[in-house]
Amino acid sequence: MAESWSFLDTFEPNFRPLVVIELAKGTKEETIEWFTKRIVDKKANGGAQLLVKPLVMENGGEHIYLVGASTLRLLLGAETVGLVKECNDNSMRTFTYSSRKTFKDFADDNPNFLTMAECQYIIKHELENLRAKDEKMIPGYPQAKLYPGKSIVRRLLTSGILVQIFPLHDREELKKLCHTWYGRVKVDYQPLDEIRCYFGETIALYFGFLEYFTFALVPMAVIGIPYYVFAWEDYDKYVLFATFNLCWSTMILEFWKRMCATMTYRWGTLLMKRQFEEPRPGFHGVLGINPVTGREEPVYSSVKRQMRIYLVSLPFVCLCLYFSLYVMMIYFDLEQWALDYHEENESNFSSLMLFVPSIIYAVVIEIMNRIYRYAAEFLTSWENHRLESSYQNHLVLKVLVFNFLNCFASLFYIAFVLFDMKLLRQSLATLLITSQILNQFAESLLPYWLQKRYKKRMKKHICSLKTDKDLPLVEQVSLEKEMGTYVGTFDDYLELFLQFGYVSLFSCVYPLAAVFAVLNNITEMYSDALKMCRVYKRPFAEPTANIGVWQLAFETMSVISVVTNCILIGMSPQVNALFADSKTDLILTVALAEHLLLALKFIMAFIIPDKPRSIQLQLAKLEFESLEALKQQVRATDVYIREK
Amino acid sequence: MAESWSFLDTFEPNFRPLVVIELAKGTKEETIEWFTKRIVDKKANGGAQLLVKPLVMENGGEHIYLVGASTLRLLLGAETVGLVKECNDNSMRTFTYSSRKTFKDFADDNPNFLTMAECQYIIKHELENLRAKDEKMIPGYPQAKLYPGKSIVRRLLTSGILVQIFPLHDREELKKLCHTWYGRVKVDYQPLDEIRCYFGETIALYFGFLEYFTFALVPMAVIGIPYYVFAWEDYDKYVLFATFNLCWSTMILEFWKRMCATMTYRWGTLLMKRQFEEPRPGFHGVLGINPVTGREEPVYSSVKRQMRIYLVSLPFVCLCLYFSLYVMMIYFDLEQWALDYHEENESNFSSLMLFVPSIIYAVVIEIMNRIYRYAAEFLTSWENHRLESSYQNHLVLKVLVFNFLNCFASLFYIAFVLFDMKLLRQSLATLLITSQILNQFAESLLPYWLQKRYKKRMKKHICSLKTDKDLPLVEQVSLEKEMGTYVGTFDDYLELFLQFGYVSLFSCVYPLAAVFAVLNNITEMYSDALKMCRVYKRPFAEPTANIGVWQLAFETMSVISVVTNCILIGMSPQVNALFADSKTDLILTVALAEHLLLALKFIMAFIIPDKPRSIQLQLAKLEFESLEALKQQVRATDVYIREK
Repeated sequence: MAESWSFLDTFEPNFRPLVVIELAKGTKEETIEWFTKRIVDKKANGGAQLLVKPLVMENGGEHIYLVGASTLRLLLGAETVGLVKECNDNSMRTFTYSSRKTFKDFADDNPNFLTMAECQYIIKHELENLRAKDEKMIPGYPQAKLYPGKSIVRRLLTSGILVQIFPLHDREELKKLCHTWYGRVKVDYQPLDEIRCYFGETIALYFGFLEYFTFALVPMAVIGIPYYVFAWEDYDKYVLFATFNLCWSTMILEFWKRMCATMTYRWGTLLMKRQFEEPRPGFHGVLGINPVTGREEPVYSSVKRQMRIYLVSLPFVCLCLYFSLYVMMIYFDLEQWALDYHEENESNFSSLMLFVPSIIYAVVIEIMNRIYRYAAEFLTSWENHRLESSYQNHLVLKVLVFNFLNCFASLFYIAFVLFDMKLLRQSLATLLITSQILNQFAESLLPYWLQKRYKKRMKKHICSLKTDKDLPLVEQVSLEKEMGTYVGTFDDYLELFLQFGYVSLFSCVYPLAAVFAVLNNITEMYSDALKMCRVYKRPFAEPTANIGVWQLAFETMSVISVVTNCILIGMSPQVNALFADSKTDLILTVALAEHLLLALKFIMAFIIPDKPRSIQLQLAKLEFESLEALKQQVRATDVYIREK
Repeated sequence: MAESWSFLDTFEPNFRPLVVIELAKGTKEETIEWFTKRIVDKKANGGAQLLVKPLVMENGGEHIYLVGASTLRLLLGAETVGLVKECNDNSMRTFTYSSRKTFKDFADDNPNFLTMAECQYIIKHELENLRAKDEKMIPGYPQAKLYPGKSIVRRLLTSGILVQIFPLHDREELKKLCHTWYGRVKVDYQPLDEIRCYFGETIALYFGFLEYFTFALVPMAVIGIPYYVFAWEDYDKYVLFATFNLCWSTMILEFWKRMCATMTYRWGTLLMKRQFEEPRPGFHGVLGINPVTGREEPVYSSVKRQMRIYLVSLPFVCLCLYFSLYVMMIYFDLEQWALDYHEENESNFSSLMLFVPSIIYAVVIEIMNRIYRYAAEFLTSWENHRLESSYQNHLVLKVLVFNFLNCFASLFYIAFVLFDMKLLRQSLATLLITSQILNQFAESLLPYWLQKRYKKRMKKHICSLKTDKDLPLVEQVSLEKEMGTYVGTFDDYLELFLQFGYVSLFSCVYPLAAVFAVLNNITEMYSDALKMCRVYKRPFAEPTANIGVWQLAFETMSVISVVTNCILIGMSPQVNALFADSKTDLILTVALAEHLLLALKFIMAFIIPDKPRSIQLQLAKLEFESLEALKQQVRATDVYIREK
């Protein structure tokens, strides 16, 4: 079968295009020939043994290739990447080609055993693992150096020859997905399993978290409304609400872990073994020996990196934090000015003016967050981390610290320095609502509108040309390749994280925050869905078993919120009235309550198991089986040795 | 080779006795025959394929058997239990018989490739995994029921037919070990690697921790001495000492993890896969199907167990805690009485009387701790946990909570209710020193003395008999079988845990505590070494990779100590003088400092990696290799399928 493939014009009758490769205009012929040969070449010769088909574009200058693979090839690839699928006995197992018959829904003529997202993930993995053998450079580009074992695709990308690789949408599937997801009016859960099949686990997990988080906020919102409406500010109701919030936020974070384990078990990623991480594309250094793999690859001194982190990045971050505090002080000056103005000439206009500083500040915060984000990305990339995961961790840390301070410093200042609860409530409301509106607009509506405009123009353009065959595919590819690239769930989680801060840090001052958060998240679900389906290129599926560092970030926020809420309650006039004769007693009581709540939190986190019992059982079963299999193997050797 | 073994009188020329089996007096002949047949029978027939030799005792009534194994059998057993050994290239790998030539020091004629402790561990594992096939009961004992898959040795133990199984000492080795360990005067580290070879990893890790902890206390002791001698009680020095203590205790716990990883990597247990856990010997229930293994075995309802835990154990523990507080109040009455007495008739005798209540209380605390310990063991065993690990966790939790309260409640009361720093210092000193003296006596000296007396009597007895051959072995076995059984490191860790509490909780009040702790631990090292080598039966080696739940316990203690020390500093007259005008400011400052210190603690714990970089590299290397091996395997299948 493999023998029948020729190089460029490989075209099986049932060729299904999965991934698009776009090469730069004017790429040399010899490079193209070499690259495509490597893609279709047999595994034994160091190729990827995939199928490639050039796409003929009308304007000629572009080199676009469609990549696909035979079903057999995909199944073998599934074994290589270590996919976990459901078996006939409903247990989840690592797929191997030799045991394929034991898997649910497997049939030699069933092309849907692997989802399209999985197929595309496999192809991406195979392409990225296409490695240089004895080539010293990319043919035709002497400046693009290669060394044995270097990923060809990564070098092509960094040297600009390869413009992009992206997976194709499946229009039929997408239509179906859109319909069940957001296309009809319904009160229903999101179709997470379908989202996972189409977009992969990372994105499905984000939407799962968004949905879960929204539902989890509903009780807080429901309890919060009467507090706002009836202006309940009695001591006991107040404390009750705050205590409920604290326990609730601990519980939802703990239960999310269980829910996440349940989902990712069903999706197979909970059991998937971590792949060995390659250096990230931007990593550079002098050629050396990797101590782990023993392979020759670029090596960068860890001391130099530490110096860059501590001598440049850290001072820069501190400077930014200082700047953010400085801007905050300007905001308070403005606020004071508006107040003075309102007092001098009281009118409708002047009372409206009262909100202006907050709104300006909210906008400035958003802008600063975005600018800082670019700076953080630049710095983290300059720190030259070897692994993508380490890059991500340093980026997340930088961004989180700044965003936290930028968004909440003014609120902390108002609450704990100015002691102005009225202003706190007002600022909180303005900040929360403004940032939500801005986010919705910048994230989804604007790109959607741009996309729509571009699509219309594109359609006209294509209709004006009179090509015949392959038109839908040509049209689809040229549309999709111009779409924006979805850079990952980082911004979406960050938004939720800040929202969680607004809701929980000062929950007892502004119980309505949860209501706004719920409303925002419902629209967010729809706008994010729209964004994924219509605005951006389809992203490659990324198997993942949890929300990673965000779990930690949310938990830290919930610890901080215990402290802030205890202080706020201690500062409320009702509680102060209770301890009228001794302020010392008040503070001691608050401190004691805070410590007890924190202890309760940690005990709860410790007691609630991270995985539901059924999943624990399944995992224990698998472990037991693998131990038994090992024993069988030992016994077999045993018998073998005795018989000799 | 296996064919040449006959049943009872198997005796190879190079038979080396490793493990002793003692059957009850009057055990039926048919039982003995069946049991020994199962031990020597071939693996294929469900036997353990070990060697057995009866030991002829002069008084006849006892049935004592020595168990050994051929070198080949032990090597195969090492593969079964998953031992990790060092390879020729200095990396650690799981031992397999087929790859035996790649391991360091392996030679077909080298019997010391496996340490004696490892050999005994393998034999224990093989004996415990000797399972019933179609026997319905133990032959000769119809009441001792069996079912397919039931461990025969465990049933024999629970029905009292098997009195004990224990590993033999190696007199030569033991002599050498004693000499290097405590037999000569020296200033040196303990020979941890030799201890590990002789006693196994769990015990070596305890001694490693004891040594590490003692060294870690030295700086605190050294800094503490001048505070005591010169009675430095200036504010700044005070705060400095407490802050140093807090950071130090966090650091030593973090660095212990690294040190532990380094040691257990070298010993191979860091890489050892967890074995599937069998139900613990005491577990009982009705026959059912285990959901994990699918095997028939006793099953006990988890609801029933929860009811026993929450409706019986929990109230009992609370009652004990209440009782302990009640005893504490009596102590304070006594203390008051002694004080009154001293004031009325002042004399040397009366000032000595001042210490009496504390000493009595310390003794009572020790007694209560020991009684409670038995109750906790009884209750936890009655809760009928299926796994030994779950039994241990529940026991540790019960014992820790009670001991913590019992030992520290009076100190907390004195510090934070009576505000009597002088009394606190005096109580702390008395409690610490008394408990240390009591422990040393009860743990080591008393058993050693009893043992010595018994040994003398035994020697006389044996000399009076006139047996000839095998005398040293007969003598050794009859001596060792009467020695006490070492029940594990629990009590030793608990002692260290409480000591850590005395040192860290109130460190700024009594800086000398660390000095006493260091002195105690140095003698403790010697007395524990003596205990292991001379007082108790040799324990079976138990592979382990860390100190488990104790790490968590020590960390919790260090968090609590941050809180107590901050409060103590806040209460000191020097600090109070600083905030003379506002007590509120004082409390707020203390609370702020406490929160900052706690945050610092968590950040430090987060930043310091749990494993040193070199170990991380080694682990990454192994992971990489196994992934590569998997890929090779996939590739092989790949080629295989293509060729078909």
